[in-house]
Amino acid sequence: MFNKVSIIGLGLIGGSIGLALRKANAVKQIAGYDLGRGVSAQASKVGAIDQAYESIVDAVKGSDLVILATPVGAVRSLLQTIAPVLTPGTVVTDVSSTKSQVINWAEEFLPEHAFFVGGHPMAGKEMSGVAVADADLFKDCIYCLTPTSHTPATAVSMVVTLVETLGARLRFLDPAEHDGLVAGISHLPFLAATALMATVADDPTWGDASLLASSGFRDVTRLAAGNPEMYRDICLTNSDAIVRWLDIYVLKLSELRDHIVRHDKHIDESFARTQQQRQQWHASHSSEK
Amino acid sequence: MFNKVSIIGLGLIGGSIGLALRKANAVKQIAGYDLGRGVSAQASKVGAIDQAYESIVDAVKGSDLVILATPVGAVRSLLQTIAPVLTPGTVVTDVSSTKSQVINWAEEFLPEHAFFVGGHPMAGKEMSGVAVADADLFKDCIYCLTPTSHTPATAVSMVVTLVETLGARLRFLDPAEHDGLVAGISHLPFLAATALMATVADDPTWGDASLLASSGFRDVTRLAAGNPEMYRDICLTNSDAIVRWLDIYVLKLSELRDHIVRHDKHIDESFARTQQQRQQWHASHSSEK
Repeated sequence: MFNKVSIIGLGLIGGSIGLALRKANAVKQIAGYDLGRGVSAQASKVGAIDQAYESIVDAVKGSDLVILATPVGAVRSLLQTIAPVLTPGTVVTDVSSTKSQVINWAEEFLPEHAFFVGGHPMAGKEMSGVAVADADLFKDCIYCLTPTSHTPATAVSMVVTLVETLGARLRFLDPAEHDGLVAGISHLPFLAATALMATVADDPTWGDASLLASSGFRDVTRLAAGNPEMYRDICLTNSDAIVRWLDIYVLKLSELRDHIVRHDKHIDESFARTQQQRQQWHASHSSEK
Repeated sequence: MFNKVSIIGLGLIGGSIGLALRKANAVKQIAGYDLGRGVSAQASKVGAIDQAYESIVDAVKGSDLVILATPVGAVRSLLQTIAPVLTPGTVVTDVSSTKSQVINWAEEFLPEHAFFVGGHPMAGKEMSGVAVADADLFKDCIYCLTPTSHTPATAVSMVVTLVETLGARLRFLDPAEHDGLVAGISHLPFLAATALMATVADDPTWGDASLLASSGFRDVTRLAAGNPEMYRDICLTNSDAIVRWLDIYVLKLSELRDHIVRHDKHIDESFARTQQQRQQWHASHSSEK
């Protein structure tokens, strides 16, 4: 059992971690801190934290585990702020979608007596905020941890306990490998969705077209409703991998364009191949969940 | 009440139309025809048609209304086949996603005593086939009709009755306007989804990445599971409009790429604008349904 866990950033993810820890009765005290006006109070009210702190320094003091549940862009200055006051032995983890950059910051700023283990729960919702937090958000979701060769086993083990308490499925990855993979299956899909939404909604025909748009359009553009600051930070911290994927994507689109311009009757072979890939993924994904 | 309605092509759409007409008790006889082995028998079994015909000529003889519910690529030869045997006054409609080309074929092949009204129900499912047909598939969905200046009012009125019987919301559009709009909100989304799926699944990292792919990926790629022949026919019959949209889409992606390469901290403004467009659309769409 944890003695004190501090959650910095009380949105959907931070709030859901708090609810899950409380539900599992896995911690004596959950300390919470959020910059947003009234957010800590709301997190207390829904039971995601036991105590709301006005000062981040007080919030992390004496903690076993500090969870940085903010957009990745805030992590750098948070690490700088908490570094001088961390109790020896404290483990710090985060939940952001890019890992290499965050690990560099942790190595730069954290003292030798505190340990960082990068984390990334593959969970989310269309909406954000502690109001939609859910103790079961992580159940059966993949939760990546990216320890490095410098990370002590005891620190890793503490974050593994967190992941298991959340009911998530643990996966260890090298930080750079993680960033390359999620750029393809998470960051590129967001960019594809947001570019698609902008393409049709910026057009003068959108007033008429919007009335015809149906469930297929709804699904393919769902990610475009995601948090703009979060995706900005992702783009800023994982740009190389994202650009590499974007270039392959545009190449695929150009190949399809060529088929269409040529009125290629065999374009269905390419669609059928992709259909099969989608069906295979969906079948194995559904059975796992 | 219709006397005889003939449904040619007994997949998800044709089957669902049959079930809805039967449920509403809106027709004396529903005649069905499908090239697929055993499909007509299955359609009879689930109650989507009253009588399965071996011959398309017999299936359409004496009909008030012939509904061509096949992929658009089959419509040309179907119109040629049924043209000589249509009873004077018969109205022919279709359900395919592109309209200008189909209307050209109808004007070329149908006799003067038969009338064509292009139709397009904005409904679908991830799966296809009469086994997943559903009498309520069209409920509250938009159903486009694209009569031309040559279409007699009585013919239009007959198809309007069909649309109302299905419980769908009627929308009249000019055929070329229809094709431009659906290229943006339906055909481009399919191409975006299928290119995205191919991008990640053709990559050597897919084995590892597929395990991390989550609900966002699932939604954005859902359309990639669509019927390859249907989308081939769409690409062949609506290529100009599709290529126009594809070019704008690639341009938007290139703009985003530029922001990312430059590490532009203001990229969130572009995301926020699109987020708002998506939220506005979703809010108005949800309230209509």
